[in-house]
Amino acid sequence: MKVPRGPDQGDTFDSVDAVKPRKKGTKPASAQTSSSTPSVAAQATAAAANTVGEPAAAAEPQEATAPTTEPPSPAQPPRSEPPQTPLGRIPVMNVSPCVDNGDRPAKSVVDEEFVVTANVFREGHDAVNASVVLTAPDGTEKIVPMECVNEGLSLWEATVAADATGLWHYRVEGWSDPYGTWRHDAMVKIAAEVDVELMLEEGARVLERALDSVERTTEQKAVLTDAVAAMRDSSHGVQYRLDAGAADPVRTEMTSRPLREMVSPSTAYPLLVERQLALSGAWYEIFPRSEGAVLDAETGTWRSGTFRTAAERLPAIADMGFDVVYLTPIHPIGTAARKGPNNTLNAGPEDPGSPYAIGSPDGGHDAIHPDLGTFEDFDHFVARAAGLGLEVAMDIALQCSPDHPYVEEHPEWFTTRADGTIAYAENPPKKYQDIYPLNFDNDPEGAYAEMRRMIQVWIDHGVKIFRVDNPHTKPVQFWQWLIADVAKDHPEVIWLSEAFTKPQMMRALAKVGFQQSYTYYAWRNTKHELQEYVTELATETAHYMRPSFWPTTHDILTPYMQFGGPAAWKLRAALAATLVPTYGIYTGYELHEHIARPGAEEQIDNEKYQYKDREWYRYEPGGDREGQSLSWYLKRLNEIRASHPSLHWLRNITFHHADDENIMVFSKRRRLPDGTDDVVIVVANLDPHSTRESQIRLTMPELGLEYPDRFVAHDMITGAEWSWGEHTYVRLGPENEPVHIVWIRR
Amino acid sequence: MKVPRGPDQGDTFDSVDAVKPRKKGTKPASAQTSSSTPSVAAQATAAAANTVGEPAAAAEPQEATAPTTEPPSPAQPPRSEPPQTPLGRIPVMNVSPCVDNGDRPAKSVVDEEFVVTANVFREGHDAVNASVVLTAPDGTEKIVPMECVNEGLSLWEATVAADATGLWHYRVEGWSDPYGTWRHDAMVKIAAEVDVELMLEEGARVLERALDSVERTTEQKAVLTDAVAAMRDSSHGVQYRLDAGAADPVRTEMTSRPLREMVSPSTAYPLLVERQLALSGAWYEIFPRSEGAVLDAETGTWRSGTFRTAAERLPAIADMGFDVVYLTPIHPIGTAARKGPNNTLNAGPEDPGSPYAIGSPDGGHDAIHPDLGTFEDFDHFVARAAGLGLEVAMDIALQCSPDHPYVEEHPEWFTTRADGTIAYAENPPKKYQDIYPLNFDNDPEGAYAEMRRMIQVWIDHGVKIFRVDNPHTKPVQFWQWLIADVAKDHPEVIWLSEAFTKPQMMRALAKVGFQQSYTYYAWRNTKHELQEYVTELATETAHYMRPSFWPTTHDILTPYMQFGGPAAWKLRAALAATLVPTYGIYTGYELHEHIARPGAEEQIDNEKYQYKDREWYRYEPGGDREGQSLSWYLKRLNEIRASHPSLHWLRNITFHHADDENIMVFSKRRRLPDGTDDVVIVVANLDPHSTRESQIRLTMPELGLEYPDRFVAHDMITGAEWSWGEHTYVRLGPENEPVHIVWIRR
Repeated sequence: MKVPRGPDQGDTFDSVDAVKPRKKGTKPASAQTSSSTPSVAAQATAAAANTVGEPAAAAEPQEATAPTTEPPSPAQPPRSEPPQTPLGRIPVMNVSPCVDNGDRPAKSVVDEEFVVTANVFREGHDAVNASVVLTAPDGTEKIVPMECVNEGLSLWEATVAADATGLWHYRVEGWSDPYGTWRHDAMVKIAAEVDVELMLEEGARVLERALDSVERTTEQKAVLTDAVAAMRDSSHGVQYRLDAGAADPVRTEMTSRPLREMVSPSTAYPLLVERQLALSGAWYEIFPRSEGAVLDAETGTWRSGTFRTAAERLPAIADMGFDVVYLTPIHPIGTAARKGPNNTLNAGPEDPGSPYAIGSPDGGHDAIHPDLGTFEDFDHFVARAAGLGLEVAMDIALQCSPDHPYVEEHPEWFTTRADGTIAYAENPPKKYQDIYPLNFDNDPEGAYAEMRRMIQVWIDHGVKIFRVDNPHTKPVQFWQWLIADVAKDHPEVIWLSEAFTKPQMMRALAKVGFQQSYTYYAWRNTKHELQEYVTELATETAHYMRPSFWPTTHDILTPYMQFGGPAAWKLRAALAATLVPTYGIYTGYELHEHIARPGAEEQIDNEKYQYKDREWYRYEPGGDREGQSLSWYLKRLNEIRASHPSLHWLRNITFHHADDENIMVFSKRRRLPDGTDDVVIVVANLDPHSTRESQIRLTMPELGLEYPDRFVAHDMITGAEWSWGEHTYVRLGPENEPVHIVWIRR
Repeated sequence: MKVPRGPDQGDTFDSVDAVKPRKKGTKPASAQTSSSTPSVAAQATAAAANTVGEPAAAAEPQEATAPTTEPPSPAQPPRSEPPQTPLGRIPVMNVSPCVDNGDRPAKSVVDEEFVVTANVFREGHDAVNASVVLTAPDGTEKIVPMECVNEGLSLWEATVAADATGLWHYRVEGWSDPYGTWRHDAMVKIAAEVDVELMLEEGARVLERALDSVERTTEQKAVLTDAVAAMRDSSHGVQYRLDAGAADPVRTEMTSRPLREMVSPSTAYPLLVERQLALSGAWYEIFPRSEGAVLDAETGTWRSGTFRTAAERLPAIADMGFDVVYLTPIHPIGTAARKGPNNTLNAGPEDPGSPYAIGSPDGGHDAIHPDLGTFEDFDHFVARAAGLGLEVAMDIALQCSPDHPYVEEHPEWFTTRADGTIAYAENPPKKYQDIYPLNFDNDPEGAYAEMRRMIQVWIDHGVKIFRVDNPHTKPVQFWQWLIADVAKDHPEVIWLSEAFTKPQMMRALAKVGFQQSYTYYAWRNTKHELQEYVTELATETAHYMRPSFWPTTHDILTPYMQFGGPAAWKLRAALAATLVPTYGIYTGYELHEHIARPGAEEQIDNEKYQYKDREWYRYEPGGDREGQSLSWYLKRLNEIRASHPSLHWLRNITFHHADDENIMVFSKRRRLPDGTDDVVIVVANLDPHSTRESQIRLTMPELGLEYPDRFVAHDMITGAEWSWGEHTYVRLGPENEPVHIVWIRR
């Protein structure tokens, strides 16, 4: 029995409502379409502008300005009700990278390649294809073809890079590929002698659609028109006619300028593209008061170093090849509860105090310690650094000594206890009475604005890099706001997070804007630990968190460094400089300063609490300690970094096998603009006490080589050369060099 | 040197603009706050309504109607610019479940428990806490406390369940816990005799804030007021006063009705709560034309079964305990290119054809095959089923025979080839000339509306379950629309997806609305395969995809079933019935119909192409095949399922160790409303050919037991009882029962 059905039923969408009673409060679905999904509809419209080859003139309205367009889509199907965000015609899912569901941007630097993946699939047997669309800050778009790398998992990927700083967006577009469908079916069916003429004619029509829909040069058009003519010319043999449509050069033309139908865009995800130094740089940390500090042997008192004397150290830092000189805090230091040498509680009158106890009657975070000089002296220091190719990074420690001007002027920016006193820092039952933490909750607008004003003081004096002390003790949302607000006017500013804390907090700080993060590197010493950690950093979090590797800092001197001997100091610097693109050296590293304060994993006689004159002149040529400094090694590392662009990236690392558990092997590879590969191989003996020998096995394709290939391995530390292949013998140890850094010469 | 700073600078947010030039086009940040982030601001406002214990009267405006409120938040800090979605004061990240970034709902059924997790953390050392807020369709809210299950990873979780069908939402709120902060610090500091009076006073003030902020009964208030008085009463000893604030019952009261400050909500994620049968049910599949089909021995011709004769089979299906009877397509069948027995190409005049070749001059998808009867007969069948507690599921195969009325009336709903003919189904070079696929792209509004109208015809005749044939050959966005549109008026309708295809497509269909999915179960036979697959289904995809396990279907007869012998048929039914909450049996399973058509993994003489009279009467008491049917076993399985609620859930499965690779052990556990646990243990020998014996090791806490416990294991298949503990010996095989289904009696 057939249900009666009038000839018009089913012809228009609203007829659904003709056959069932409309519930009160519901609208016809066609009306719901536009109201419930404006953003997706807008994306679909935008996506209809297919700008293969060259970007559209402007982001919106693309329909009007795009030089080439897809054929108009067929009537849009009805859209789903909430709670479902409507799917596109071709499902595109699990776009990666994706930071916090797209709430926060992925990050890259100019020209840095990264991989975009997505699951793209479709119903039935017709061919599906996919592209990444990169939208520049000015709205121009670039379409990058994706490749299906796993058919079963419907996984597509493309390697992309953005060529200018700013806020970009990327989306994945799934699309129907009529040429791909035809080509597959035609080759199978014509070989089976099924529908021969029909398939040739259908192919000709696909190419005609491609001619109508995508802008091509006269020459490019000719490729397709010739093919159409040949496919229809029954004076030729069938195979000739098929080849005319299916073989090169038609296939190349249709890959370069494809006919994309049913184009279905994903959400557009934000991509923040920053300057190179946000990803890659060599840092050198100093306490400026130590540089040029002089002990008066008669009185036993110190004269502080100044910006002028510290500037005299800059040529040596620049000569070692560093990019950034980082200064611990330079502000006036409080006297209340001042710490003495080695973190003792009762400082003497000559003890300079910790520069992290910020603020005195001389001023707070916007002031300079009088012993260091004036703003003019600071400007001189910054200018001298710039002249040597060094940027100055400043320490931002948002905490106050009890003598800080804020304490009287803005007690609301601190926590007041029940007894009316201001709360000092505590980790119960430990007390840190020289530090008043700031409280950002009582008066957030006031406190945020003051921090912003203070940062601007330093930006106005040429500082473009801030190393933030313990950001994880301030509200994350404060950093999110501050970094974004600074970036509005100063997108070049870089923030380094010193958050040695739980992974989720470290990740959150990176997600909300910090360009770089200190890491657990200092505590990762074994091969397993290093490989696991670096793999996590280079894959799982690389799209938003950029690691900075420091073998030591003024707060960190691990047992490995205390007891590893000179080989450990070479090893840990070399690994830091090559495993990841940003690393840092705390001054004195050259001198193997390895003695810890008993009971602490930090330097004895730490310059946090006292002056330290390292008598650099003694290590100079002719000095009594000539040859005892590692500065030559740091310089060599930085030269290697400078001449090998593969070391400027994070995600391009591969670990290789070594039989010995103490031998770690990795390589970095980067395609250069001239089409060649820059490849660096690092082989390190992680045991600083013993010479180790091992077979290593190189995964040759990751080096751009075939398995049987051999190559000249040029060790850039020693200049030695060897012939290496997939299986190679290495021997490294403290008696010579603990690390090979090898450049592949073919 | 101090930078001059007037007394008013830094006091108001806009003063930032006083010290730096405002770029053209930028607004003061305070103004940007409200415009750029309405939804987050609204959430923050909503979150300020703290409705512990009882739901707010209405979802909005909550500020006015919530019976209890948190203290007003301090001034809101400035918000970040795009591209950053502003974070809350307490970061809440990685909320799970989360389907497609929240674009699509997670799923559950009424009272089904599931785990919500999130990373929640904060700056510094103060206590952080977290809750799940479940919002019912009517806007009432329920706050569920979360527990920190991994401090290092800042991972919090709560088990939640929704108690009614409809569209719910869940969000995670991170919050500052001043009582938790005070309690921790006070216990440490007072023990160390630090700030004793101060800490007691600060505790009293926290409890006073708690009294002011959260609604409590007189009795609950007294707990806190008594504590406040005792803490301030210096006539008591210090420990007494500390205990007054830190010990039970204050701690209990503050856990039940906490003082939540800085409440920071995540995005609210949608949760679609459906009826029980969407998750759990036992299905039985029939070809109605076979039920009552009679072969005329003289003429050799068949008389088709009808809905009236098929209805006579319903009591037997109901007696076995099934919940759903599923009918293969019941529509008129085309004659063009009709398939004959065993999928042969030339059907004889008496061959009934495949019910999947839908449509003839008698009608299409909205019609009933004349041989089966009329709509009145169909209604009779549905009513008879309902009277027996059975729901009817109908097969929806959206494809047409060349004789379908659509072909003439709506050629635009098909694909026309270059030669003007309508395209039949192909998998080149294979041709399926009896099938014309529908094309949903030429006239989506018309085609969608017609499908919607057709579905309504069956809903109007009592069908609430649709089994969709090959949904992955139609646009996913069509299903998304259709299912949502039907749900607007008929939220009780359940859709089962028959998409034996790539995982991403299967998942996408589930995400866009299908309540259930066929699975790869039929092809997962080893312990490793089954454990890996079921674990994936019960964890990774359980929040949106509900599996249905079928040991066989009319399309599927795996080698395991062909050659496993009777033990395989028990085993695979028992596993399907217990591993996941929905399973299905294709009729004839009772009779071990295990002979395949040569070269195919499906039944020989498949009733897709011919009638099949199974002569059920011969297996009845007194029949010549009495005792040869497995119907008693299926009935027993369904009885076990009916009496054990733990088998009605998906996510509550645990696998246990067995030494033998062919012995698989798992358990399901569910807390019942009376506070007891329902626990079922299944021990299966996966080798249908051999008896296997093995030690098994039960993870006792997963059974709600301690490791040393022993219990009475009652085998619900045989009635045997054993004393079992952590380490237990089992022996199973084809000579007796291949599966123990054990109920724990203590």
